[in-house]
Amino acid sequence: MKQTPKYMHLADSLRKIIDENHYPDGFALETEYELAKRYSLSRQTVRHALDILASEGKIKKIKGSGTYVKRNAVLNKKTKIIGVIVTYISQYIFPSILRGIESELTANGYSMELSSTSNQADKERDLLNEYINRPVDGLIIEGTKTNFPNPNIRLYRELFDIGVPYVFINGYYPELKSISHVITDDCGASKKAVEYLAQKGHTRIAGIFKSDDMQGIERYRGYFEGFDSSGLEFHDNSVFWFNTENRNYLFREDYLMKLLNGYTAVICYNDEIAIQVYELIRKAGKSVPGDIAVISFDNSIFSDLNTVKITSMNHPKEEIGIIAARQLIKMINGGKCEYIVLPMELIEKEST
Amino acid sequence: MKQTPKYMHLADSLRKIIDENHYPDGFALETEYELAKRYSLSRQTVRHALDILASEGKIKKIKGSGTYVKRNAVLNKKTKIIGVIVTYISQYIFPSILRGIESELTANGYSMELSSTSNQADKERDLLNEYINRPVDGLIIEGTKTNFPNPNIRLYRELFDIGVPYVFINGYYPELKSISHVITDDCGASKKAVEYLAQKGHTRIAGIFKSDDMQGIERYRGYFEGFDSSGLEFHDNSVFWFNTENRNYLFREDYLMKLLNGYTAVICYNDEIAIQVYELIRKAGKSVPGDIAVISFDNSIFSDLNTVKITSMNHPKEEIGIIAARQLIKMINGGKCEYIVLPMELIEKEST
Repeated sequence: MKQTPKYMHLADSLRKIIDENHYPDGFALETEYELAKRYSLSRQTVRHALDILASEGKIKKIKGSGTYVKRNAVLNKKTKIIGVIVTYISQYIFPSILRGIESELTANGYSMELSSTSNQADKERDLLNEYINRPVDGLIIEGTKTNFPNPNIRLYRELFDIGVPYVFINGYYPELKSISHVITDDCGASKKAVEYLAQKGHTRIAGIFKSDDMQGIERYRGYFEGFDSSGLEFHDNSVFWFNTENRNYLFREDYLMKLLNGYTAVICYNDEIAIQVYELIRKAGKSVPGDIAVISFDNSIFSDLNTVKITSMNHPKEEIGIIAARQLIKMINGGKCEYIVLPMELIEKEST
Repeated sequence: MKQTPKYMHLADSLRKIIDENHYPDGFALETEYELAKRYSLSRQTVRHALDILASEGKIKKIKGSGTYVKRNAVLNKKTKIIGVIVTYISQYIFPSILRGIESELTANGYSMELSSTSNQADKERDLLNEYINRPVDGLIIEGTKTNFPNPNIRLYRELFDIGVPYVFINGYYPELKSISHVITDDCGASKKAVEYLAQKGHTRIAGIFKSDDMQGIERYRGYFEGFDSSGLEFHDNSVFWFNTENRNYLFREDYLMKLLNGYTAVICYNDEIAIQVYELIRKAGKSVPGDIAVISFDNSIFSDLNTVKITSMNHPKEEIGIIAARQLIKMINGGKCEYIVLPMELIEKEST
């Protein structure tokens, strides 16, 4: 059994103390140094625990000063509005995710305010600044480019300093790993996909991954782990990388088909990519799954609308929205941070 | 003043105890649990300290069993050979780096065995496997794709479990951050480059970065930090990403010049990219620095051989080799891990 980390223990103890004692708003807690000494823990552990409480809106850390109790700061506002920031709104799996969020929020008397970033840090910056200046009860956020350093980390920290609770979906930033998140098990799903193809006799399995999102990176990690567990040897040249900006330029017949030459299967970052890849394979006069088997992620409507339905790892779209909204509401009512990883299941169709 | 982290303190204490007591080879140390209790530290801190000593070849950690003293394991071998694994050998700044390594090794009675990976994890795997089976006194390694998950982390751990000390140059993996490294201050240098351009009046500054190496990511981080410190507003569409595999496909006039449209300056990942970019700008009928100023990194021979000499951040090429070799020799002789970050200085030439 996995041990609960020390910082979690400490966060739990401090939360209990804050909840049980009726400290006034702004009551100064012991310093990091004093807490470290009292609990015989490193300052790093103490800092990590305080970050969790800050992200729950229970305390406010003021740089160079100390840590202060934040008594029901958010509850007092009662805007009953939740901001939702996603990369895209009306495309792909986003309508389903948003449906999940909206149904759960509405059922609990909240209304949803929706914005999208197009996966651009500059639009994310403007939205975060807006929510720093105009109160909402909480936010559900899909970060931009979660595998690249983010210029807005400062704004994210400011949000939790002023006591606005938020929950990340689909990915998160290493600097903000204390913040609640609800993600899919992208690594495990990708490993399963490779193992499934290997069991079908494929040994030459190409992979197409997105390099600027955490999901792409984890799907890549699962890919090489699947090679390992299937007894196949990993080679870099079986991997094809793209990102938000160069995607449309890279998906061209000449480039892609040269890369796929010699492979009998390809694992695609998601269904949107899979149908582009399917089209290029077909244009090159090859068949799916006869010449090349195609497997993908997200089990979206795209995979079913394709001429040859695409085998895909099921993304719990609506569920992720419901769970994220439920978690945020818990936090607004004083609940603690949680880190939820949902499994993805293989849905076999016609492309493999 | 920055505090020494607790794990460093503990590593120092344990190192002293091991060095002063003449334990035989294989002597069992206290368990992680016992050490955590005795020093009132978290198990995570203890584990981190033990990882450092393992990476120095002072102890050997056996999974599910415990931690054992490794008495001069490496010194006993005395192959007097150092393996050097780099991404490229005869290209770009690598001859200078290797010259630095070789001069320092030779001066200390070591000979160098050189291999390259072409930045491919599969070649890296074969080389690491070779050095796991055939003893050398130590290794200097430039890892492959340091910004992507690496399928060879297990082999890297095995190397330090069998007591072969090694030093990373130019980048390292987050999972192996206890291992010695010698890198350049890529973030700081990139920030300086943007500030320099901003001082010259540029406000529309594009950036071209490599997404699969730590250096590319840190140069990107410095880029947006430079925007911030210069009072400029960052926008995602001023950034152009490439990687090892798609580089040649992306650097085409139609794609690049469309991206550079409207910009008066461009900061390039390195001199190799800068001269490609220079050529495309020239072909498009524009001038450097008249229409577009070009600034780059590494101050290599490439920047001087270009028709218009390229302003570049100086990479301490030979120095990084010398320092890495010196650090490795120290570790072979029982010295401790070090983490060295070298500054890069702006060398103004004709392109800005």
